[in-house]
Amino acid sequence: MMKMILDLDTGVDDSLALAYAIANPDIEVLGVTGTYGNVTTEQGVRNSLDILHLLEKDSVPVFKGEDHAMDKVVFTRHEVSARIHGENGVGQVTLPPASAKPESTDAIDFIIASCKRWGKELTLVTTGPLTNLATALEKEPEIEHMIGKVIVMGGALTVCGNVSHFAEANISQDPCAARNVFETSMDITMVGLDVTQRSRLDKKATQSWRNLKTISGRLFADMADYYIENTLGTEETFIHDPSAVICAVHPEFFQAFPCFLTVETEGIDRGRVVVDSKKLRASDPTTKACIGVAADLVERELTTTLYGLFKGN
Amino acid sequence: MMKMILDLDTGVDDSLALAYAIANPDIEVLGVTGTYGNVTTEQGVRNSLDILHLLEKDSVPVFKGEDHAMDKVVFTRHEVSARIHGENGVGQVTLPPASAKPESTDAIDFIIASCKRWGKELTLVTTGPLTNLATALEKEPEIEHMIGKVIVMGGALTVCGNVSHFAEANISQDPCAARNVFETSMDITMVGLDVTQRSRLDKKATQSWRNLKTISGRLFADMADYYIENTLGTEETFIHDPSAVICAVHPEFFQAFPCFLTVETEGIDRGRVVVDSKKLRASDPTTKACIGVAADLVERELTTTLYGLFKGN
Repeated sequence: MMKMILDLDTGVDDSLALAYAIANPDIEVLGVTGTYGNVTTEQGVRNSLDILHLLEKDSVPVFKGEDHAMDKVVFTRHEVSARIHGENGVGQVTLPPASAKPESTDAIDFIIASCKRWGKELTLVTTGPLTNLATALEKEPEIEHMIGKVIVMGGALTVCGNVSHFAEANISQDPCAARNVFETSMDITMVGLDVTQRSRLDKKATQSWRNLKTISGRLFADMADYYIENTLGTEETFIHDPSAVICAVHPEFFQAFPCFLTVETEGIDRGRVVVDSKKLRASDPTTKACIGVAADLVERELTTTLYGLFKGN
Repeated sequence: MMKMILDLDTGVDDSLALAYAIANPDIEVLGVTGTYGNVTTEQGVRNSLDILHLLEKDSVPVFKGEDHAMDKVVFTRHEVSARIHGENGVGQVTLPPASAKPESTDAIDFIIASCKRWGKELTLVTTGPLTNLATALEKEPEIEHMIGKVIVMGGALTVCGNVSHFAEANISQDPCAARNVFETSMDITMVGLDVTQRSRLDKKATQSWRNLKTISGRLFADMADYYIENTLGTEETFIHDPSAVICAVHPEFFQAFPCFLTVETEGIDRGRVVVDSKKLRASDPTTKACIGVAADLVERELTTTLYGLFKGN
């Protein structure tokens, strides 16, 4: 069983990623750490608690993390995030409110403690900016050598970005944090737009969840439909955040390219992920970027696993 | 035996690529087509003739091609080209002048005729802008379905460019031509900076050529040393153009990523090669980009093959 921490800026696709992790019997979710991006950290933490409550997993602890980029003093939510994820981050759906509260420990200390406790058994999946992990590395540098795997939803290596021609949203929120993370020796897999844009969630799948006539099936279908309607404006949308969790348990669905990655932190292409030119001759890269994917397998894995979950409640 | 046309803007590394093709017993060089880039088309054609003369291959025909980009009226040589390749394109080395002249047929017609004659047996290796091939495709669209393989030295998919943060020199000279070529259904392999910057030619190798005390060994060592000294300013330099010819005969040295490639033709990243977002869900891409390389094998293949060639004359 894979011990996993999910570092989420809980909007709609983060919610789908969390639900998938909860549903997959091979994953033990140790906790959720909250970050900013799709929503504020505060809103994201609340959304994570509510999603866990909806899935009857109130026992999973949720930790509040950093609320802005390392080199900024405040986070200002992009207008596009409100449009895609809804003002409340969960597609304007009203979730039954959880009574559980976030833990008193913060996300940084939870990540550090988990690295120390679980070591190589620990997988951290991030679906937002890399601020929490970079801050944890700054506070306790030794975790670089302790942690098992890091799966990052973010970046665009071979395709154009989605917030600029060069940068993907998560990385562009905090390029310095991303660079600090990518330039470590941790076992990092980047699950970026190169692959997440190849896999699609469509309204046939969400309708099948709705047809279950369970509360989770209905609310998740509503959330996902809002997201579908406000991203591509078609009957389908990209599978961003859930792809990272699926990659953690099914790396065989992905074609990964081992290379030393870095992030541009200045200039017009700030937030762009590239292969590090300084390390072209270095061997044994620990980082790898997913560049190809068996999209049909990812799509089926996501929609059928969630169908099974929503059937139950 | 592979039937090959080399489309060259004959500077120093084009000369090395041509010499490698001449030396490799598995390659039959059908002809050299001249283009602009490192030098003017006229200068490049003269250099090709002189290099062939030096290697006692005056029988290989040389054809003059386009002398500027499809969407321009004139070619202006970059200052950096003169610095790297020398004013004369061959590292300020004085080559024994060939008496042979360029063919009266032009490069475009030669490419078209060769496609018709040799079909899938034909491999075209380009080490300059893609203007000649794009022009041939415009003049005779059917060659798209006739030609065997196209190996393109150019582009930077996962690394930064060398003329801008985004664009590599050959592609940036004529982005429209490159886009028109990449978006066909031809079997195209891109050998870009992603791999050519990983392989290196050093002064130990050039010294071994010089030590042969042959005229070709000495002149090629002088050319290569000029190029080495004026690119990285160290004892070694990248193996750009020869990598494309080596890839044609030794694809097993390279890790190729099948994907639909396109080229940005407008804006700040004009000349950037990217995976085509419109075709992420399309199957069976005919294009592939080299992203990894066994650099030691490429280096040995180049230096030892040339050593064998220079030994003879």
